[in-house]
Amino acid sequence: MEKQLQLFLKNNKNKEVIVIQGLGFVGSVMSLVCANAINGDYAVIGVDMPTIRGKKIVNDLNNSIFPLAAEDPKIDELFKKTLKRKNFFATTEIDAYKYADTIIVDINLDVEKNNDYSGELIDYSIELSSFKNAIKTIGKNCNKDALILIETTVPPGTCMNIVKPMIYDCLKKRKLSIDNIRIGHSYERVMPGPGYIDSIQNFYRVYSGIDNISADAVESFLKTIIYTDKYPLTRLGNTNATEIAKVLENSYRAINIAFMVEWSRFAEESGVDIYEVIDSIRLRPTHSNLMYPGIGVGGYCLTKDALLASWARQNLIGNNDPLSQSENAIVINDQMPRFAFEYLLRNYPNLSGSNILLLGVSYRGDVGDTRYTPVEKFSNFLSDSGAIVAFHDPYINYWEEKSLKIEQDLKLLLKKLPDVIIISTGHTFYKKQETIDALMNLSNLFIYDTIGLLSSEQIQLLQEKHTVLVIGRGDL
Amino acid sequence: MEKQLQLFLKNNKNKEVIVIQGLGFVGSVMSLVCANAINGDYAVIGVDMPTIRGKKIVNDLNNSIFPLAAEDPKIDELFKKTLKRKNFFATTEIDAYKYADTIIVDINLDVEKNNDYSGELIDYSIELSSFKNAIKTIGKNCNKDALILIETTVPPGTCMNIVKPMIYDCLKKRKLSIDNIRIGHSYERVMPGPGYIDSIQNFYRVYSGIDNISADAVESFLKTIIYTDKYPLTRLGNTNATEIAKVLENSYRAINIAFMVEWSRFAEESGVDIYEVIDSIRLRPTHSNLMYPGIGVGGYCLTKDALLASWARQNLIGNNDPLSQSENAIVINDQMPRFAFEYLLRNYPNLSGSNILLLGVSYRGDVGDTRYTPVEKFSNFLSDSGAIVAFHDPYINYWEEKSLKIEQDLKLLLKKLPDVIIISTGHTFYKKQETIDALMNLSNLFIYDTIGLLSSEQIQLLQEKHTVLVIGRGDL
Repeated sequence: MEKQLQLFLKNNKNKEVIVIQGLGFVGSVMSLVCANAINGDYAVIGVDMPTIRGKKIVNDLNNSIFPLAAEDPKIDELFKKTLKRKNFFATTEIDAYKYADTIIVDINLDVEKNNDYSGELIDYSIELSSFKNAIKTIGKNCNKDALILIETTVPPGTCMNIVKPMIYDCLKKRKLSIDNIRIGHSYERVMPGPGYIDSIQNFYRVYSGIDNISADAVESFLKTIIYTDKYPLTRLGNTNATEIAKVLENSYRAINIAFMVEWSRFAEESGVDIYEVIDSIRLRPTHSNLMYPGIGVGGYCLTKDALLASWARQNLIGNNDPLSQSENAIVINDQMPRFAFEYLLRNYPNLSGSNILLLGVSYRGDVGDTRYTPVEKFSNFLSDSGAIVAFHDPYINYWEEKSLKIEQDLKLLLKKLPDVIIISTGHTFYKKQETIDALMNLSNLFIYDTIGLLSSEQIQLLQEKHTVLVIGRGDL
Repeated sequence: MEKQLQLFLKNNKNKEVIVIQGLGFVGSVMSLVCANAINGDYAVIGVDMPTIRGKKIVNDLNNSIFPLAAEDPKIDELFKKTLKRKNFFATTEIDAYKYADTIIVDINLDVEKNNDYSGELIDYSIELSSFKNAIKTIGKNCNKDALILIETTVPPGTCMNIVKPMIYDCLKKRKLSIDNIRIGHSYERVMPGPGYIDSIQNFYRVYSGIDNISADAVESFLKTIIYTDKYPLTRLGNTNATEIAKVLENSYRAINIAFMVEWSRFAEESGVDIYEVIDSIRLRPTHSNLMYPGIGVGGYCLTKDALLASWARQNLIGNNDPLSQSENAIVINDQMPRFAFEYLLRNYPNLSGSNILLLGVSYRGDVGDTRYTPVEKFSNFLSDSGAIVAFHDPYINYWEEKSLKIEQDLKLLLKKLPDVIIISTGHTFYKKQETIDALMNLSNLFIYDTIGLLSSEQIQLLQEKHTVLVIGRGDL
C-alpha cells in the first residue's frame, strides 16, 4: 500500500495534503467534503485502523464503494466527483501522517455505560486509551508544522490537558521544534440522513485553538470547506470553550427530552393529549424548542455527551462534583424504552405469544442509523415477555448491532397478520396514505404509536377498525 | 357603594357586563383591555377583597389613579380612554357578580414555600382555601347563565375537580338550573413591563371549556379582546390540558435556567466564558432558547408553577409520584442567589464592613417588579456577612416586600464611594455609556456582574481601573 500511497501523492503533487483520521460516520463524509473543497484543491488521505472493519472500509473506498448508505444524494454526487478528480486515497498505513499539512481527528471517543436490565444507569467510564493512542500516532509521525484539528467530541479539557502535552512531548522526543505545530478544536455537527453533506458545508461552526496562531489556521482551513458567507464561523476564547459548547448543546437536548418524559406520563394520567399541548406552547418563540415525548433517545451523541462533560469536570477540570442534572437526563432517557413498554403493558397485558410488528428500528425518522437505537431495548422487553417480534424499516436491510436481517417490504409482514403494530420510528413512510390503507385492510389490530406520529384524523380513522394507543395521550 | 354600582350600571345599560375578580398584576390590566375591547362594548366591574390593600386599589381606580406603575405607555392611554368612556367601576361588593354576563377569575393561587437559610427548598404546600372561597362567592351570586372564565394559574385538575362541582353545587342549592352555566379556562401570559398590554391583546392564547358550549363561549369572548387574526387562538381538548399547558411552559423555562446553573459553574472552573459559548450555540434554531446564567429566578410564575403541577399530580390526578425533575428545577433555582454569593465570596472574601451598592432590585430587566426577586435573598447574604448594602433601581422607589425606600439617583449613591458594585438586575440603564462613564470616574472598585450584562468591551474598559468578576466567566 505504501507504493500506492506514493503514486497517489505523485499524481497529486503541489496539492496541500489533508489526512483524516477515522473513516466512520463523520470522517468518511468529511473526506468527501475536503476532496471537494469549495475553496481549495486538496489531496485527501483517509486513515483507518487495520482492523477487519477498518480494512473493509479502506478497501471499499479504494474500490469506488462508499461505505455508508447514501440517503443524501449529495454523497453520491461528491463521491463520483472525487473518483474523477482522483484526489482521495484510503489507507491503514500510519506513514500517511508524514505527508499531512492538516490532520483532522474524526475517531470515536466512547463512554462505556453500564445499565441494568430496566435501563437504569448504574455507572459509566470513559475509555481514553484508544484516543490517546491515536494522538500518539499523530505525534510520532506528523510534520512539525502541521495543523492538527480535533473534531472528535471530547471531555472538556482534552486539547489542553491531553492533546497538547502529548504532541509536544512526541515532537521533543523526535528532537523537533514545537514552535510551528498548531492544534485546534472545531466540533462537527454532522447529521446522518438527507442533509448529511449540508450538515458540514452549510452549517454554523464553532472553533478554537490552543493559541491564536492555531485558531487562525483552523479558521483559514474551515473557510475552504464551509460556506462561511452564509454560515459565519464563531471563534471562542480557548479549546475548553469549544469542547464545552459541544457537550453543552447535546446535554441541552437531552435534558429537554428528559423533561418531557415526566410530563407525557402526567398527560396520560390526566386524559390530556400532550402533543396538542406542546403545539399550542411552541407558538411562543421562547418555547419553540419544546420536545415531543417518545420511545427513547438514540444515536451517538445525545446518549453520552453529558457524561463526557460530567467526567471531565471531575477528572480534567478538578471539581469533584458531577454535572448531576445533565447526568440525570441521561439516566431518565435511558429508561424511556421501559416506560414505553410499561405503558403498553398496562393497556395490552397479554403480550405472551402475541405477534408484534415493530415499524422502524432506526433511532431517528427518515434515517437509516441504528446506533444506540432505543428500539433495541424496547424490543428486548417485548421478546422477554414472550411476544414474537418482527421488524420493518424502509431504510435498513441489516441491523448490525443485532446481526439481524430487516424486512423492507411492509405488505409482506402485514400478510402474517400481526396482533400488535408498534410505530417505533418516525419515518414519514408510516404516515403515508398507503401505509394507513394497508392497516385499514386488516382488522382488530392493537396499534401503539410510541412517538406521536399519527395525526388526529389518522387515529380517528384507525379507531374505526382497531384499538389505538399513543404515548402521552390519555384521551383516546 | 351599592348606589354607585347601580348608577354605573344605569349609565352603561344595554352593555354586556364583565366582572373581573382580583385587581392585581393581571386583573387590573385585564380590566383596561376589556373596557377597551377591540370588538365589543362592555361594562367592566373590577372586584377586589375588602382588605386594606384591596380597598386602596378600588379607591384609587375610582379616583382615576391606576394602581400599577405604568412602564407601558399603552396602560396610560387605555386608562385615559376608560375614564372617558366611563365603562369601568371598581368595588369590593360581591353583589357585583349578580350582574355579570362574564366573570373572569384573576386572583392569586399561592404556593407556600419553606426554604432554609441557604435557599434549599425543604417543603411546600398549596393554599387552596382562598381560591375555593372566591369560587364559592361566585357560585353563590352569579347568574345561572354566566360564563365563568378562570385565568388564574391553577393546579391541573382544578376546573374539573374543584370549580365545576363547586359552582354546580351552589347553583343547585340556589335551586337554579346548571344547564346554561359555562365554565372555561384560558391562562394569561401577562408580562409586566413595556409590553404589558400587548402581552394580552397581541399574543397567542390557549383555551378550553368543561364542555363544548363552554369552550365556544370562551372563544367568542376572547375574540373580542385579542387580535386573533394575528395571534390565532388554540382550543385544547379539556381544561386539564390548558391547565397543564400553563405550568408546563413555565416549568420548561425553570428547568432550562436550572440547566444553566451547573454549566455556568463548570465554565467558571474551566476558564471559559459561558456567554460566548451560549451565543455560539444559539445560532442553531434548535438551540435558540438556551438561557444565560444569573443571580436567580424571580417573579410570580417560574418560582412556583412546577410545584403547582407536581402537587396536582399527587392530589388531584392521583399518581403518588411528584414531577421530580421539574420540582428539582425549583430547588436548584432557589439556590442561585447563594451560588452567586459564594462566587463573590471566593473572589472577594473581605465582605465584612465593606460598602456594597446593588444595581437593581427588580427580578427582571427594564421592569419595576420585585415579586420574589432573588436580589432579596442575595442581599440578605451580604448583610449577614457584615457588609453595608445600598440599593439602586431606576424603576423602583419603594421596595414593598422589604418596606424599603429605594434611591433612584445613581450618581448620588456613587458619591458615597462604594467598595463593591454588584449588577443584580439586567436594566438597560446599567449598560448605557453614562453609567459606564460614572463607574470610570471612580477608582479601584470591585465590580461583580451577576447576569452577564456587560459587554466584553465594557469589561475591558472597566478593568483598566477596576476588578471585574462575571458569573459564568472564568477567564477575566
